[in-house]
Amino acid sequence: MPKPPDPARRSERSRKAVLDAALTLLGETGYTGLTIEAVAARAGVGKQTIYRWWRGRGEIVLDALADQLGAAGPQALPNTGDLDADLRAVVRATVAELADPKLSEITRALTVESLTSENFADQVRDRILRPQLDTIKERLCGHVRADVDLDQAVELFVGPMYHRWMLRTGPLTDEYADGIVDLALAALRPAPNPR
Amino acid sequence: MPKPPDPARRSERSRKAVLDAALTLLGETGYTGLTIEAVAARAGVGKQTIYRWWRGRGEIVLDALADQLGAAGPQALPNTGDLDADLRAVVRATVAELADPKLSEITRALTVESLTSENFADQVRDRILRPQLDTIKERLCGHVRADVDLDQAVELFVGPMYHRWMLRTGPLTDEYADGIVDLALAALRPAPNPR
Repeated sequence: MPKPPDPARRSERSRKAVLDAALTLLGETGYTGLTIEAVAARAGVGKQTIYRWWRGRGEIVLDALADQLGAAGPQALPNTGDLDADLRAVVRATVAELADPKLSEITRALTVESLTSENFADQVRDRILRPQLDTIKERLCGHVRADVDLDQAVELFVGPMYHRWMLRTGPLTDEYADGIVDLALAALRPAPNPR
Repeated sequence: MPKPPDPARRSERSRKAVLDAALTLLGETGYTGLTIEAVAARAGVGKQTIYRWWRGRGEIVLDALADQLGAAGPQALPNTGDLDADLRAVVRATVAELADPKLSEITRALTVESLTSENFADQVRDRILRPQLDTIKERLCGHVRADVDLDQAVELFVGPMYHRWMLRTGPLTDEYADGIVDLALAALRPAPNPR
């Protein structure tokens, strides 16, 4: 006799299908094309199934990105032994993401939702942002002056680029990214030992 | 014979009344209480007069703040001869504004509008933000390493605090503000002359 369908497993399958569909659509059409209708059609579920779990596309994207990060496992900055080079690589990559119109659109959408809902802001911070900031923090550990607060140290890398991205005050290039790393390391490095 | 009313002057009077009303309401009730109805009632004009000039309250607030800045005349950072103290004063004041719920609400509203409209973003940048950034830039001039881009130098002061404010990753205190200045100056100061 066939087993009756397991509703919990079916739910989990639908949930996964929705999040996969969201990531696919983000890649194909960007955030603009990511309507609830399009997600439902791509996932093969009804719109009411989506609205049972998510209040809107911002929440779907948040869950999809957080799941993707989680599936990738614990992240760490590359450690080639060359702190400067490792930081340049990650800062260049992040600046390039902000300069990419499609990826930038996702960040913009999540930022608007974060500014409108405290709960959403907390989730973006804890599930998406904090894990990324922590990778920089860990890589800096032991390489900064003892009196420096590590949270403030990380902000020297990410604060300027988000400010520039948000207010569009200047170009987002590799050269700019390298400048961020140079300045931040100049601020953070222990003074050379006096001879 | 009394002169006929001058429509241009009457328009300018209404415009001024609307912007004054907006500033008053911002102070009294914050951005939440700043509805078009409330502005119209306070300014003694009809709602249709408001909609003739502005598309929404974001635009009114932008014009009101920009006019206020303009009326205050060209701004400059205090120059007591002590760069560190002057920067501490301005960074502490800005951090305190971001920590103030009423003022923070205005910044949040302008940020959301900026993220949704490029034209609005350009106006916020050029009419509100740039003049403030330029005051820091001018005060830094001549006090930073020759190889440093001054726009990037200014971002070391403002980027971290906006990042922390937006993502609520940590406290916004005087101590935090002083830490920003310490780090930024450590990054920017010319190396002492070798002996």
